[in-house]
Amino acid sequence: MSVLITGVAGFVGVNLAQRLIDQGQRVCGVDNLSRGTIENLQGLLGHPNFEFKQLDITEPEMLLNACKEFSAKNSLTECWHLAANSDIPAGVRNPAVDLKDTFMTTYYTLEVMKHLGIPKIAFASSSAIYGDHGSTTLVEDLGPLLPISNYGAMKLASEAAISAAAESFLTQAWIFRFPNVIGVPATHGVMLDFVRKLKQTPDILQVLGDGTQQKGYLHVQELVDAMLWIHDHATDIRSVYNIGADDEGVTVKYIAEETVRAAQPLASIEYGQGNRGWVGDVPRFIYSVDKLKKLGWTPKLSSAQAVQKAVRQIVEQEQQA
Amino acid sequence: MSVLITGVAGFVGVNLAQRLIDQGQRVCGVDNLSRGTIENLQGLLGHPNFEFKQLDITEPEMLLNACKEFSAKNSLTECWHLAANSDIPAGVRNPAVDLKDTFMTTYYTLEVMKHLGIPKIAFASSSAIYGDHGSTTLVEDLGPLLPISNYGAMKLASEAAISAAAESFLTQAWIFRFPNVIGVPATHGVMLDFVRKLKQTPDILQVLGDGTQQKGYLHVQELVDAMLWIHDHATDIRSVYNIGADDEGVTVKYIAEETVRAAQPLASIEYGQGNRGWVGDVPRFIYSVDKLKKLGWTPKLSSAQAVQKAVRQIVEQEQQA
Repeated sequence: MSVLITGVAGFVGVNLAQRLIDQGQRVCGVDNLSRGTIENLQGLLGHPNFEFKQLDITEPEMLLNACKEFSAKNSLTECWHLAANSDIPAGVRNPAVDLKDTFMTTYYTLEVMKHLGIPKIAFASSSAIYGDHGSTTLVEDLGPLLPISNYGAMKLASEAAISAAAESFLTQAWIFRFPNVIGVPATHGVMLDFVRKLKQTPDILQVLGDGTQQKGYLHVQELVDAMLWIHDHATDIRSVYNIGADDEGVTVKYIAEETVRAAQPLASIEYGQGNRGWVGDVPRFIYSVDKLKKLGWTPKLSSAQAVQKAVRQIVEQEQQA
Repeated sequence: MSVLITGVAGFVGVNLAQRLIDQGQRVCGVDNLSRGTIENLQGLLGHPNFEFKQLDITEPEMLLNACKEFSAKNSLTECWHLAANSDIPAGVRNPAVDLKDTFMTTYYTLEVMKHLGIPKIAFASSSAIYGDHGSTTLVEDLGPLLPISNYGAMKLASEAAISAAAESFLTQAWIFRFPNVIGVPATHGVMLDFVRKLKQTPDILQVLGDGTQQKGYLHVQELVDAMLWIHDHATDIRSVYNIGADDEGVTVKYIAEETVRAAQPLASIEYGQGNRGWVGDVPRFIYSVDKLKKLGWTPKLSSAQAVQKAVRQIVEQEQQA
């Protein structure tokens, strides 16, 4: 099997590429390195089954040429489309960020796939497509979908474009709605913020908001497990699955305490006001993974265990940085 | 009240503009006249409360300048955003059509509204955002949303972008999910096709598909009634409403027979194969308008009555053409 991974130098891309290569697959990875880094790819570069091309998908002829070159040796049979803006606040400040990096990457990836006859796509969507439904559990058949960030909006736009393509040239589309994913290489997110803040001010961790915001967290290794499970077991032409922890999650307070414990055990924690960190952030939601469980996959780690593991890994990553 | 209408020269735009002007509102109408026509605007041009600007929204500085000019006299308080591709098969053949005309028009309209501080949008979405849910009734809280046309995909993308904007600068967004709307000035659709075919071949009407495809139809006058009702009564920041007939609809066979009766009573009708006309067309769906009925609005005409009225109007329109 030979596959295309877009956004390969990002947090999820690196972990997915490593796993597919471990399985013996050939991987053509592309990334514009605007948020992913070449350092993230150190373990992969030079592997005979891995080829990396630095390019921006929104210049689609570059993607087309890269795929053609790779396909001359190994015919591409599917695409794992992960490329996107990962900085949600940046996209709230400027909608052009998510338009280009979260949506147009999908649009052009589909155009190139159609041109080359690549029939299958696995897409990293997001729980952000749901928006704020208060205490309603987020299940796949919930509507209306009313994202509150441009990131969520352009992920939903991407789902929509993929769904339409499944009516014309795609034979299979797996749509994964990602939860909060944690682990290494950490490039953004609350834990990395906390670890870096503590490096700056080892005595005190200042937390945005009152710390009561609660979310489920999944470790990236388990995310990759789940993606592959869905890929191997879900057969609907449009297979839409929430992926996430199988619990009600942990609070920001819990994460702050675990980070302090792992990085600076004597630091104190200071909380701000309110339970919404920034525009576009949903304060609390319950995410159903019942559909995925019915398909046969359940996470091994709880949100709390995933946080503990990731915090240790991120502290280690930042010590080496 | 002074309002912006995008796509004002289209089928719905003309009817909406007329109604708002009849109510005493001032209307700034824009259209690129790619599908709408200046003839459609004959009844409006010259009215002291109507101003028309021919421009393409995807050149947003033109829209910005037009709005600024109009606002100098009458401060714009809301936008009725109707501009979109209306030729669904064209968008299926080439996704760039709906990307530009259905989605980027929304994106840039929002950008201009943000720039000028226009706080309210009323948006013409579509039943096409749902996709093909078989025999499941299409209600507003149904998911997942899996459009099968690029038109439906880019309408959903537009809903998503508006929803995100309602978290930052919009104070109100009304999202109308339009059904099949009929009436005059007819610019596209099955009835106009039938009337024109009968003009070419008065003896026979050839129908794509087997005629069993069944849909609900709403007359454009009633659509405008419903839009205004929702605008005046729905108060959720994001108010999403299906608008449609309150019945299970009529078949293509019924429409073919009514058209023949009105245009060429002696013509015979010949049917094709299958119940799906073209890629992107949902063969049969049941559309719930219960939420709208709860808000206090119910259509006066059945689908069959709407078809009878529209067929007569379209035959007349084409005789004058």
